[in-house]
Amino acid sequence: MSKNIAAEIIYETPIEEQKIEIVERKGIGHPDSIADAIAEEVSKNLSRMYIEEYNRILHHNTDETQIVGGQAKPSFGGGLLLEPIYILLVGRAVTRVGDNRLPYRSTALRAAREYLEENCPHLDADEDVILDCRIGKGSIDLMEVYDTKKGLANDTSFGVSFAPLSDTERLALETEKYINGPLKSELPEIGQDIKVMAVRNKDSIDLTIAAAMVDKFVPDKDHYISVKQDLKERVMKKAEDITERDVNVMVNTADDYGNDVYYLTVTGLSMENGDDGSVGRGNRLNGLITPFRPMSMEASAGKNPVTHVGKLYNIASNEIAQKIYEEESDGIHEVFVRLVSQIGKPINDPQVASIQMVVAEGENKNTKMYSAEAIAEEYLDNIHNLKDRILNDEISVF
Amino acid sequence: MSKNIAAEIIYETPIEEQKIEIVERKGIGHPDSIADAIAEEVSKNLSRMYIEEYNRILHHNTDETQIVGGQAKPSFGGGLLLEPIYILLVGRAVTRVGDNRLPYRSTALRAAREYLEENCPHLDADEDVILDCRIGKGSIDLMEVYDTKKGLANDTSFGVSFAPLSDTERLALETEKYINGPLKSELPEIGQDIKVMAVRNKDSIDLTIAAAMVDKFVPDKDHYISVKQDLKERVMKKAEDITERDVNVMVNTADDYGNDVYYLTVTGLSMENGDDGSVGRGNRLNGLITPFRPMSMEASAGKNPVTHVGKLYNIASNEIAQKIYEEESDGIHEVFVRLVSQIGKPINDPQVASIQMVVAEGENKNTKMYSAEAIAEEYLDNIHNLKDRILNDEISVF
Amino acid sequence: MSKNIAAEIIYETPIEEQKIEIVERKGIGHPDSIADAIAEEVSKNLSRMYIEEYNRILHHNTDETQIVGGQAKPSFGGGLLLEPIYILLVGRAVTRVGDNRLPYRSTALRAAREYLEENCPHLDADEDVILDCRIGKGSIDLMEVYDTKKGLANDTSFGVSFAPLSDTERLALETEKYINGPLKSELPEIGQDIKVMAVRNKDSIDLTIAAAMVDKFVPDKDHYISVKQDLKERVMKKAEDITERDVNVMVNTADDYGNDVYYLTVTGLSMENGDDGSVGRGNRLNGLITPFRPMSMEASAGKNPVTHVGKLYNIASNEIAQKIYEEESDGIHEVFVRLVSQIGKPINDPQVASIQMVVAEGENKNTKMYSAEAIAEEYLDNIHNLKDRILNDEISVF
Amino acid sequence: MSKNIAAEIIYETPIEEQKIEIVERKGIGHPDSIADAIAEEVSKNLSRMYIEEYNRILHHNTDETQIVGGQAKPSFGGGLLLEPIYILLVGRAVTRVGDNRLPYRSTALRAAREYLEENCPHLDADEDVILDCRIGKGSIDLMEVYDTKKGLANDTSFGVSFAPLSDTERLALETEKYINGPLKSELPEIGQDIKVMAVRNKDSIDLTIAAAMVDKFVPDKDHYISVKQDLKERVMKKAEDITERDVNVMVNTADDYGNDVYYLTVTGLSMENGDDGSVGRGNRLNGLITPFRPMSMEASAGKNPVTHVGKLYNIASNEIAQKIYEEESDGIHEVFVRLVSQIGKPINDPQVASIQMVVAEGENKNTKMYSAEAIAEEYLDNIHNLKDRILNDEISVF
Repeated sequence: MSKNIAAEIIYETPIEEQKIEIVERKGIGHPDSIADAIAEEVSKNLSRMYIEEYNRILHHNTDETQIVGGQAKPSFGGGLLLEPIYILLVGRAVTRVGDNRLPYRSTALRAAREYLEENCPHLDADEDVILDCRIGKGSIDLMEVYDTKKGLANDTSFGVSFAPLSDTERLALETEKYINGPLKSELPEIGQDIKVMAVRNKDSIDLTIAAAMVDKFVPDKDHYISVKQDLKERVMKKAEDITERDVNVMVNTADDYGNDVYYLTVTGLSMENGDDGSVGRGNRLNGLITPFRPMSMEASAGKNPVTHVGKLYNIASNEIAQKIYEEESDGIHEVFVRLVSQIGKPINDPQVASIQMVVAEGENKNTKMYSAEAIAEEYLDNIHNLKDRILNDEISVF
Repeated sequence: MSKNIAAEIIYETPIEEQKIEIVERKGIGHPDSIADAIAEEVSKNLSRMYIEEYNRILHHNTDETQIVGGQAKPSFGGGLLLEPIYILLVGRAVTRVGDNRLPYRSTALRAAREYLEENCPHLDADEDVILDCRIGKGSIDLMEVYDTKKGLANDTSFGVSFAPLSDTERLALETEKYINGPLKSELPEIGQDIKVMAVRNKDSIDLTIAAAMVDKFVPDKDHYISVKQDLKERVMKKAEDITERDVNVMVNTADDYGNDVYYLTVTGLSMENGDDGSVGRGNRLNGLITPFRPMSMEASAGKNPVTHVGKLYNIASNEIAQKIYEEESDGIHEVFVRLVSQIGKPINDPQVASIQMVVAEGENKNTKMYSAEAIAEEYLDNIHNLKDRILNDEISVF
Repeated sequence: MSKNIAAEIIYETPIEEQKIEIVERKGIGHPDSIADAIAEEVSKNLSRMYIEEYNRILHHNTDETQIVGGQAKPSFGGGLLLEPIYILLVGRAVTRVGDNRLPYRSTALRAAREYLEENCPHLDADEDVILDCRIGKGSIDLMEVYDTKKGLANDTSFGVSFAPLSDTERLALETEKYINGPLKSELPEIGQDIKVMAVRNKDSIDLTIAAAMVDKFVPDKDHYISVKQDLKERVMKKAEDITERDVNVMVNTADDYGNDVYYLTVTGLSMENGDDGSVGRGNRLNGLITPFRPMSMEASAGKNPVTHVGKLYNIASNEIAQKIYEEESDGIHEVFVRLVSQIGKPINDPQVASIQMVVAEGENKNTKMYSAEAIAEEYLDNIHNLKDRILNDEISVF
Repeated sequence: MSKNIAAEIIYETPIEEQKIEIVERKGIGHPDSIADAIAEEVSKNLSRMYIEEYNRILHHNTDETQIVGGQAKPSFGGGLLLEPIYILLVGRAVTRVGDNRLPYRSTALRAAREYLEENCPHLDADEDVILDCRIGKGSIDLMEVYDTKKGLANDTSFGVSFAPLSDTERLALETEKYINGPLKSELPEIGQDIKVMAVRNKDSIDLTIAAAMVDKFVPDKDHYISVKQDLKERVMKKAEDITERDVNVMVNTADDYGNDVYYLTVTGLSMENGDDGSVGRGNRLNGLITPFRPMSMEASAGKNPVTHVGKLYNIASNEIAQKIYEEESDGIHEVFVRLVSQIGKPINDPQVASIQMVVAEGENKNTKMYSAEAIAEEYLDNIHNLKDRILNDEISVF
């Protein structure tokens, strides 16, 4: 293979046959997800600014937004924020081309504010958020390595993913999307900050949901309890579409009615009251945290979509794994893809592209391996198209 | 099992037999490692302050330090820092007990500064670092859940680890420790910021080392090249003690002598010039990033050592896996441990403790499973001792 | 006198007869004025919050807003901001009453943002301003001294003012108000940041005006020059209503057309490009800086309107001087009033109230003194009414 | 006169004959004084850096340091700081000459930290101070106006001063210097933060001293009271050397022993507990706040010593007034000097230099005026020497 692509067949107890499985999904309102989203929006908007000005994306990396939780005093019927949330935009960007200086910080601040306004309907981004920015200039060395036309990797880094999702994984992912999607109009009491923890023990799945309630929509304790019950029932019903296993749903397990402890918020967001958030600490690119599966530690959000392998290879490994699984799903149980770059080498030519497959007995392994390598090669040949799909908001990174 | 401990035997191609393996070790001077270290030192010093004042550790969580890289102008013979590094301490802590207010921020700032002074010998922490602090008060809900005497989990979270380390893993880990340890006196030119990427392809291991050179010790290009050569040879020699596989060492591969690109720094730290760092983005608790292995996304550094399962369960899963492997190593190839808590439940009684073992053929599986569960149970019964070992600096978290 | 009021007749060459006079007026868009305004708005809004919650104004002092100038790239026809303006709200406030915590920071942030939106029409406060807040809790000692019902002074401080305004003073003041008022619709090219320096040499007054032009309304150099000419003519015409002296108007004297130096801005505000601002550094309470006149160094803006003598005594001395002059203007050339408090003593009973008058020859000095003291005493008896007028926006402090 | 110098004789009741006089001196530990000092040290150190690198002082202006008070818990025998003091360095500076970038922020941070370490002996600058820096690049327009060789004024601004000091003024000034100087070894209990308010009523002077006590040196209330008594006696004794008037000394008048209110601090500085500070809000260049005297609003501290008239003209007017008074003191009661620049014009050629003198009867006014103008002219001819004296620490600005 011209591209150091190495497929292999491995033996492994398939995830569905393992006794235990743990999966976590941090919803879009979780502080780590918000940090990811802001970092990504900042990168996209900087990219668009560069394209408008220079017709190509210049170097930047804004993958380190830090959210410092505020202080809130929620109460049934409506409470208030006591201290604002502090959000620090971090990273670097090309800020000057020759003598032409670019409005990188204004662009970043606007992107962050707009994201909050659109996605956190119960948060007053003007009043309750301090938005700060310490994005600086890029490293000199990296700058010199970097040249968008060549498409060289800016780091030695890797991307990791797998396919397909297990029942438990789909359940965690789709439950959150359901609550934050179709259910929103029916249960407006439930805020954006939802965390789903799915623990499968053989054929029984415990689904623990932490759902921040928006206090202005919850007049009293009885209403709170009824929303929880309602949520539980709807999620259990929805789960039937996803898995045949037994699903046991628990909502806001830290509640303690006797001591007046409820998961009540003003904004539907736990960052209003002490929960901090940071890029790269939450969901992986496929939207999940899966300790029984291979994962990358690399944050995808906020990295530039042209040279930053930490982003591109995570997307690529996920999509390659899916493609291989889809095209060859008959005989393939599981696919794991890992891509490693080497700094200064072309993005489309990784140092290593490892494809591992668990195949059904009786399959022709060589055929599978050959076919998988071909899929990976074709994908890598076109990896430079990713940036357009990213800027068109077609790829989610958390 | 009283503690929801579930051992199982799984089938899996052992890591040493898989074709490809990728392992990364971020050295102690990497910005993510420094963020981890500062967060952990802050937590330890807050813990000591609480113990001194109240004879027990009060609630805190300082696991979100953010480092914003500075700007530097290194040059052979000695350069200078142009803009200071900015470090923001984040988190929350009990700041008041009744009417008694506690010096939490001063304690945090001192801890951070002392760490930098002791571990970054070429950094002037007074002049070249802006140390800021936005640590705030804890969340009210968590506060109420929290009671150190009960030892209840403060979150639904999990810890993940495995044993033993593979050849490639030990190679990555020990190479960095060797360079930042015994080699320091012989090659003072090499700074603290070292990144080791090990990629094994069958029986050949590529070890890519990025080592920040301290410019004041490097008079010119020739010296720089000779240090690289020296480093390469010593690492290759050292590697012979660790693995019998072929090891190919590459140092500072982004260098481009023709264009005067060297990995030269003033302080031996890449954060001097644009590299940001954040807690929980670097090494896992065992010191490594291992995408071919199960990992936790949970940051261990900075979490309190009494109730924060995100820390305790990561330590516990690592030590349980090691214990099982050590006591039963004859017939066990690999052990994977995952522990899941449930918010508000006792720490020593996890929601799930999953132990997976790959055992040699012919072993009695039931015996292995029983024995592993017994080890885990005993460990969990004593998990409250962890806090003392943490405060005695006996446990590394990155 | 029961209130330590001491009037005296002094001899002094009246200001209009002195050879030289210097007067400065910083317009509402000057960074120091914006700092003053924000500090004052924050105080007013905190006051209103306290009244709503507790029916009285609680202790606060927000008199130290710091503005850090941004970076801009203005150009004829419209430029852009490169780096946002940073504004730090500083001070302290009662943030908790018993167990009831108050949203002091959100209130402060909203007040600041609203002021900018209403008064800086060409500034995008969302995108081009980083609004930060480090307002903290009040000092314990002051807290204990402080009790709004008693109306005790919170500091040993003083207020100083005089009446009437001289020709030159009225000219400086009214010129700025004219440009930022009625002229705005006719000359929209002129921004809010206007600085007027009036230097009288005998009967000739040089009026130097620095007026930030808003670039989007100025297509080219010719237009720029014509606006300056237009401004000059209108100001000279207006000056005829104010003084009979010769007035020589100069606009933007630092311009250097040959080197393309113009006073062009994107926002009409010099703080967009490097000009910092700070509370208490600009106009005194009467709207002017008058080095030939007695002045207080005490910032009035942002201080609480109940106990803070640094604010109340500046207002009081100004209004007492005006009242004395108005009621007794026949025979009085000039009145100077200074009030000194003593910490912990009632506001309406100053340590010293000094009234100095320059009277016409032949006037009965004792009558004048007696009458002035009576005016001062009555005013002080009603000083507690000031807070209502302040909250009704009836009193300008800069 | 070639330099627009205009001397005049005015009639005025000399200050010593006026009934009332008010004078304030903020000691070196007052937060406004510390802000002034830090701003000035930053400017001096930037100047030295520029000289070392380019043999001349480049443009900078760092006259806006903001201090945000911390929180402290003092107690007899020794308390502690609860929250650190936050100090923000603000301003702008030439940060790059051609391609050569300069370490302006590191230089500024070091200057600030060193000042605190040397002048605040009971403050732990590492632990109890957050030192931040937002010094940015200079304004483009000003940059172009600026050229150190030409020595042109960078602003339309003025300097104001007078001579000689009155009894009350000398008393206020020297009392603070005495307490913070010779008395320190004898009364170590007294911290650096001392505020002296002198109110003269005819021939009686009330001297109100607020002196922060350092708690670790004050074991109990009795000791506290005895130190106050001791201080009072020594100051009264010292006052006899300065004035023949009756002096009544009051110390820490806000104390309320019954309610346990003392002016006790951990560090000897009120900024430890809620007192904010800002440049240009405290003493004028002569070390005093004198509302019965002409004053400039212009902050001298932190401005560059080459082109910034706001600094140079304040120094110059003070020294010119003193020179005139000293050389001509026989017949001169009082001298007032005001200098006005015009942006872009040479520093040594002011727009106006106003000299006002109150002379004794029978003096030859023309001779006095001619002589004064000659002194002023000679001084202005040599004004460029000021920068050396400033950098040699020969000129105090607050």
